[in-house]
Amino acid sequence: MSVQDCPFCKKLADLPALREEDVVWSFPLGVAFLGPWQFYQGYCVLASRKHARELFDLTDEERKTYLEEMCLLARAIHHAFQPLKLNYELLGNQVSHLHWHVFPRYGEDPDRLSPVWLNLARAEQSPTIRETLERGSLPREEIRARIRQSLVALGAPSG
Amino acid sequence: MSVQDCPFCKKLADLPALREEDVVWSFPLGVAFLGPWQFYQGYCVLASRKHARELFDLTDEERKTYLEEMCLLARAIHHAFQPLKLNYELLGNQVSHLHWHVFPRYGEDPDRLSPVWLNLARAEQSPTIRETLERGSLPREEIRARIRQSLVALGAPSG
Repeated sequence: MSVQDCPFCKKLADLPALREEDVVWSFPLGVAFLGPWQFYQGYCVLASRKHARELFDLTDEERKTYLEEMCLLARAIHHAFQPLKLNYELLGNQVSHLHWHVFPRYGEDPDRLSPVWLNLARAEQSPTIRETLERGSLPREEIRARIRQSLVALGAPSG
Repeated sequence: MSVQDCPFCKKLADLPALREEDVVWSFPLGVAFLGPWQFYQGYCVLASRKHARELFDLTDEERKTYLEEMCLLARAIHHAFQPLKLNYELLGNQVSHLHWHVFPRYGEDPDRLSPVWLNLARAEQSPTIRETLERGSLPREEIRARIRQSLVALGAPSG
């Protein structure tokens, strides 16, 4: 996938065009977006500002920074919402621009023992399931604000 | 999950009891096991030697080391088998002891655009699918040997 065709590169090139609630934090190397599936309250996607396919395509310094940002974001989500567990996933099978999915998992989720992707595949087949998985129990603005508060408390760098 | 009940802690406490083909590499902080699903040729699980639930439960130094080991393992798998893409996943929904799944994805896989978990869920229902996903096109010993060769070539540290 070239930079020209890359949806993450397009998004990152014009952050002010996005809704404020969708951009959680701009780190030096990555930008954290609030993900669509807020049944997993606090779910974020941390996209690398640099277009790269694999973690080892970053320089050592970039990779360390990016991974630390991912861990800090996870910690902030944990701090804000106290999930049972966090799931950290970098796939890129459809969009091969480095982006971490950070999914918090909760005790109330009957499918908490399975990867989220089984449920998300069901959402593709059913508008009702889609709606359930998109809607969180808090407004998106509030979820974003709480993660940002935690990031501030944790001294997260911005860039 | 306590250390006493933890299947990874049990495994790590007695590595010599495992089949040689199952242990790919002992890093200073993690141990790489050859995973069961060798349809994803080179699939490894990198377990932390330290029992911890989340990445931020490690010290800064431990976390950096563990993440670098994960990236180096991914790079070695890529070097050995040239997959289309790598998937890096740390879930722990069932066993909350830090372990990375590193899944290489290949062009011949008709489901290459989806997370592996959809296929793996099918394997739970069907012995035929299970067998297909377990069996690689090379013997496990050979897959292990190739990843090890790549790790040596990349100067991977052992511990």
